[in-house]
Amino acid sequence: MSNTIGRLYRVTSFGESHGRCVGVVVDGCPAGHRLNLEHVQAELDRRRPGQSGVSTPRREDDRVEVLSGVFNGVTTGAPICMLIWNRDIDSTRYEEHRWTPRPGHADYTAEKRYGGHQDYRGGGRFSGRITAGYVMAGALAKQVLATTGIEVLGYTSQIGSTVAPDMSLDQVRENTEGNPVRCPDPETAREMERDILKARDEGDSVGGAVRCVVLNVPPGVGQPVFDTLEGDLAKALFGVPAVKAVEFGAGTALASMRGSESNDPYMVVGGRVETASNNMGGVLGGVSTGAPIELTVTFKPTPSVSKPQKTVDLKTLKETTIAIEGRHDPCIVPRAVPVVESVVATVILDHMMQRGYVGQVHGE
Amino acid sequence: MSNTIGRLYRVTSFGESHGRCVGVVVDGCPAGHRLNLEHVQAELDRRRPGQSGVSTPRREDDRVEVLSGVFNGVTTGAPICMLIWNRDIDSTRYEEHRWTPRPGHADYTAEKRYGGHQDYRGGGRFSGRITAGYVMAGALAKQVLATTGIEVLGYTSQIGSTVAPDMSLDQVRENTEGNPVRCPDPETAREMERDILKARDEGDSVGGAVRCVVLNVPPGVGQPVFDTLEGDLAKALFGVPAVKAVEFGAGTALASMRGSESNDPYMVVGGRVETASNNMGGVLGGVSTGAPIELTVTFKPTPSVSKPQKTVDLKTLKETTIAIEGRHDPCIVPRAVPVVESVVATVILDHMMQRGYVGQVHGE
Amino acid sequence: MSNTIGRLYRVTSFGESHGRCVGVVVDGCPAGHRLNLEHVQAELDRRRPGQSGVSTPRREDDRVEVLSGVFNGVTTGAPICMLIWNRDIDSTRYEEHRWTPRPGHADYTAEKRYGGHQDYRGGGRFSGRITAGYVMAGALAKQVLATTGIEVLGYTSQIGSTVAPDMSLDQVRENTEGNPVRCPDPETAREMERDILKARDEGDSVGGAVRCVVLNVPPGVGQPVFDTLEGDLAKALFGVPAVKAVEFGAGTALASMRGSESNDPYMVVGGRVETASNNMGGVLGGVSTGAPIELTVTFKPTPSVSKPQKTVDLKTLKETTIAIEGRHDPCIVPRAVPVVESVVATVILDHMMQRGYVGQVHGE
Amino acid sequence: MSNTIGRLYRVTSFGESHGRCVGVVVDGCPAGHRLNLEHVQAELDRRRPGQSGVSTPRREDDRVEVLSGVFNGVTTGAPICMLIWNRDIDSTRYEEHRWTPRPGHADYTAEKRYGGHQDYRGGGRFSGRITAGYVMAGALAKQVLATTGIEVLGYTSQIGSTVAPDMSLDQVRENTEGNPVRCPDPETAREMERDILKARDEGDSVGGAVRCVVLNVPPGVGQPVFDTLEGDLAKALFGVPAVKAVEFGAGTALASMRGSESNDPYMVVGGRVETASNNMGGVLGGVSTGAPIELTVTFKPTPSVSKPQKTVDLKTLKETTIAIEGRHDPCIVPRAVPVVESVVATVILDHMMQRGYVGQVHGE
Repeated sequence: MSNTIGRLYRVTSFGESHGRCVGVVVDGCPAGHRLNLEHVQAELDRRRPGQSGVSTPRREDDRVEVLSGVFNGVTTGAPICMLIWNRDIDSTRYEEHRWTPRPGHADYTAEKRYGGHQDYRGGGRFSGRITAGYVMAGALAKQVLATTGIEVLGYTSQIGSTVAPDMSLDQVRENTEGNPVRCPDPETAREMERDILKARDEGDSVGGAVRCVVLNVPPGVGQPVFDTLEGDLAKALFGVPAVKAVEFGAGTALASMRGSESNDPYMVVGGRVETASNNMGGVLGGVSTGAPIELTVTFKPTPSVSKPQKTVDLKTLKETTIAIEGRHDPCIVPRAVPVVESVVATVILDHMMQRGYVGQVHGE
Repeated sequence: MSNTIGRLYRVTSFGESHGRCVGVVVDGCPAGHRLNLEHVQAELDRRRPGQSGVSTPRREDDRVEVLSGVFNGVTTGAPICMLIWNRDIDSTRYEEHRWTPRPGHADYTAEKRYGGHQDYRGGGRFSGRITAGYVMAGALAKQVLATTGIEVLGYTSQIGSTVAPDMSLDQVRENTEGNPVRCPDPETAREMERDILKARDEGDSVGGAVRCVVLNVPPGVGQPVFDTLEGDLAKALFGVPAVKAVEFGAGTALASMRGSESNDPYMVVGGRVETASNNMGGVLGGVSTGAPIELTVTFKPTPSVSKPQKTVDLKTLKETTIAIEGRHDPCIVPRAVPVVESVVATVILDHMMQRGYVGQVHGE
Repeated sequence: MSNTIGRLYRVTSFGESHGRCVGVVVDGCPAGHRLNLEHVQAELDRRRPGQSGVSTPRREDDRVEVLSGVFNGVTTGAPICMLIWNRDIDSTRYEEHRWTPRPGHADYTAEKRYGGHQDYRGGGRFSGRITAGYVMAGALAKQVLATTGIEVLGYTSQIGSTVAPDMSLDQVRENTEGNPVRCPDPETAREMERDILKARDEGDSVGGAVRCVVLNVPPGVGQPVFDTLEGDLAKALFGVPAVKAVEFGAGTALASMRGSESNDPYMVVGGRVETASNNMGGVLGGVSTGAPIELTVTFKPTPSVSKPQKTVDLKTLKETTIAIEGRHDPCIVPRAVPVVESVVATVILDHMMQRGYVGQVHGE
Repeated sequence: MSNTIGRLYRVTSFGESHGRCVGVVVDGCPAGHRLNLEHVQAELDRRRPGQSGVSTPRREDDRVEVLSGVFNGVTTGAPICMLIWNRDIDSTRYEEHRWTPRPGHADYTAEKRYGGHQDYRGGGRFSGRITAGYVMAGALAKQVLATTGIEVLGYTSQIGSTVAPDMSLDQVRENTEGNPVRCPDPETAREMERDILKARDEGDSVGGAVRCVVLNVPPGVGQPVFDTLEGDLAKALFGVPAVKAVEFGAGTALASMRGSESNDPYMVVGGRVETASNNMGGVLGGVSTGAPIELTVTFKPTPSVSKPQKTVDLKTLKETTIAIEGRHDPCIVPRAVPVVESVVATVILDHMMQRGYVGQVHGE
């Protein structure tokens, strides 16, 4: 706890990696939205394990089931429970590591937080698998946002020390799904793939970053001073396992800039106020400027590596080593792209509803 | 709206830069805490304008007044309203810029968010001055945390391209307040000060970063999956004007690391489990590890610069230029140090209460 | 929306009368509680339709399934999803009444609230069947409360104009489940049963009231001024379909009392402060006194009656009549007893956690 | 704690009976509303002590001050802090009763809740005086609601055993303020006044009830299943000291009715769907029907009576007696009328905003 987020579009997450299922309850989705279930499934498929050599060999079909809130294919305004069942569960390895917390994982903190009662199999509640719930809620949010013209685009912007160059939105739209690392620049993508496979072959893992852009959010969305767009996006994104930094616009680079350089000048384009640059990432004072909302999310390297690592036996309080042999992604970033998009879409929809741009009944 | 944050230690902010006052209502502070009002005042003084050449010449004595919730010098459990009155208000310049939004400021987004009804004088509700309220709430939080041994230490870690070296906690404790930029390394501090004054003399401003360390948070604090320590800290920190990035531990540098390198190994020190490094910033799975919680907050350069900038006249929709002559900090970072500490203390106390380490009545 | 209630013990309800299932997600249940699933089932059985002649003939086995949050029979601290599947669904009659709202039902308000997209079959989201979710959450709450000695006892105190006499707690404990109307006084119970069957035979229905007593709540529980015990209990109870009034202690009778008569005098019993009477229902200033918390909930008559009633065809806006033939309880009150208990237990546990009497980990 | 209520129109209360002030922060009021401060003052004057022989002789001018959120007489969208200062404070009597809790008051529960640290002077945070804050927030809510045609009308419907007859809305509008007990029926009013003065002369007090009607709420407002209109109204109303029961429509009388009698038939009036009766109080399924929302609030007798009462000395745990000589209302009900209206208006506005009928910017 707490597993609910949002004020008007509220998402409650449940389920564990090796439990019966992973699911979500979405409360506050506008009534009257025709649910595109194939789209939800397609988004889940983007996140699904076993897509390529850069991800875990765990095999799950991850078929979405809708348990409530939809009638005749249309949302009713009632809470929407969606879930996927867990099938390919192999928990054997976890008993063996029960008392030796894996470095970089939440094993130790879960032990302390839940007094040893946590479901430790496969990371339990701390597994990346729970983000399947975020994706279901986010796919629905994307569908509703699309009716207002809002588009959410994510892509892999960094793997290890390989950083993607600047790219056009068209490149992002067309190329992101064309390679296993989800980097829209094909050459960079190949390099990133090499980096990941090299880490994997060395029994190691590698980190990276996801860039996300939200187009067509009108100016004036956000609820300062505490429910800022940035704050709510960041809070939700830190709910994604392995996220360690969230930046908006030029992000950390702003520390070394001058004001005359970082301030985005205003201009008039086609009778509308726009900014000539977007160092602020489309947010000023916690409120949207009308420019694309741009953010970067840093993912730490997958903590599960087969190289031996130092840890402690919690029962004997003796130091020992651990080598993790399970099925793991050598790099989580490519599969995290739809997750970041989903979380971002969820928060943006909530704020669009708070600001009155999306009502409680479709078309009202 | 929304101007309330926190679940059990709840802070509601009110007031504007050029209104009558800036204040805060703290709800949920444990009853029975002997309020050290001198400490609150000392914290406000750290944030106060006019401290040195690196900050704005606006003169305010910023004396804290307690309107409720304290009886015989002790908190009662009732909401604590604290405020400072605004005195040195010079709003003349703001009328002149009413329709030409300052680049990098929230003028334009406020106009869109509040339909032109916002108090635009001195940035109104979007002014850095409202953080005085955060400091009052945070000073109180620090006092309560101190009774559990928790200490919150902030310092300036970067100004422009000048980055502070690694420093010991003793250095931080002893040196941070010894120079106007609040960097504990004296040599770096001098360089930072030069950078700021150079920017000021050039009619410009400069950005930077604050590093914050929280000591002695026990392991097991945090409420995953959405009310993570990182998420709640980040959300609150993005409520501070000019913050554009929040990182934990090694932060963005984790993107280019290998798992074998970034994972913090466990070891046993004096019969207790500790980590040999702290790349995770004391948080795993959104829950404290027991290691110091470490975070870095990036501040963009102060948007107010006297150099001419391009903007738009919102009434005529014609492009124009603006040069901002008011009283402004050429760099907000040194004064932001107590603000970051305050926000962090506020969130940590809320989580300590959620986890039951701090009760609703002192000593209960 | 909104289908979540509670601050630390949070319950999210989902499902519809004629959808796939009715369920609940419980977030914040202390980790380490050994779940007594038979007890949950037993509570569901008390609420289940088809128990006797005084309730609807709809047949559901209502077997609880746990989808998450429990591992090796023990709560993990993760959200607990529980549900029952709907089986005996007969929606034929509902199409026929699609455009003629049943008086006293939520058909018309649902139409207005959800723009015609609501699941109208069997009352959909407004059906009493959704309270099965409340019962699952409440059964769990009762189990946790029992570890602190708290007991929640409900019974039918009124059916039509038949009012139960004052009874001892022992009578309530022993006799409530001994008759189909759940009134602990056998003679009154027989009279109540006659009243219900008479109404049924006349194609009509009848209202009533449930009295609920909570024993052993320590003094000092409650969060004034807005999260009072009374306020939170009332809010949750009005989430039960057909509830139209909530009273504490002597309730509406207090309007005609004198202060010298209504004030509960303090006395010392066995070294402890107690009250000589309990007109206040165990709550003063929104905070528990240590006396039993006593409340009365009024249920309106079941709106579904086979007698013809006046209504309107929403498509033609012409007046018409409706006679409801479906399977309905002539009196909902006996089946509402476990529902009221569950809702009360849920709120009391939430407040016990807020006050620190129940922690986030069992036994911590 | 917790002293905040509401989701989009959020009210935070602070202050104590004998502290410096009583105040409120309103967060979420639509920007662009021209504040009618005279109206706020007029509402405060209705609640003010010392209006007649039926209320306390405490003398306060209760002049509202606005500290934030209003600029050029118009709301800005920023939080609005309003307060009144306490002046006529006479705390002498309270020291003397420090350890002998007054029966029917919150003295004992406050002691237990706040560990003895509460401000006990004049009831402190539990005093009826804090409702001045509710009235300020409610007056503002009434003003905003008035722009949508919604009207909130309260009156005294019962004092002791004297119950007001049915009255027309015109009677209520014209006569309520015409007598000191605020009962629109002049003859009943005189009888009620006699009842109160008789109780006062006998050193006693008397209870009563306030009836409140809300006109012109459109159908379809309310957020089931937990944020029902009834639930949110009840929760807020139980935040008013001395409230012990809340009923909607026919209320507790529904327990003894038949469904054929209680169901409000639908009919068509002027092309609109209406109900022929209003036993449901304008709410079905937690959602407004379009009929007037009608509710009744029971107030217990003022607990302060000069007759000797039994209590306990908390220090010695010896039984003793107490006679309360201070300045108290022999009946709180007449002064509670504007308080009930205010609380109701606050909740209704919050729900009108949630449903999108009132936006975040006036006229948007």
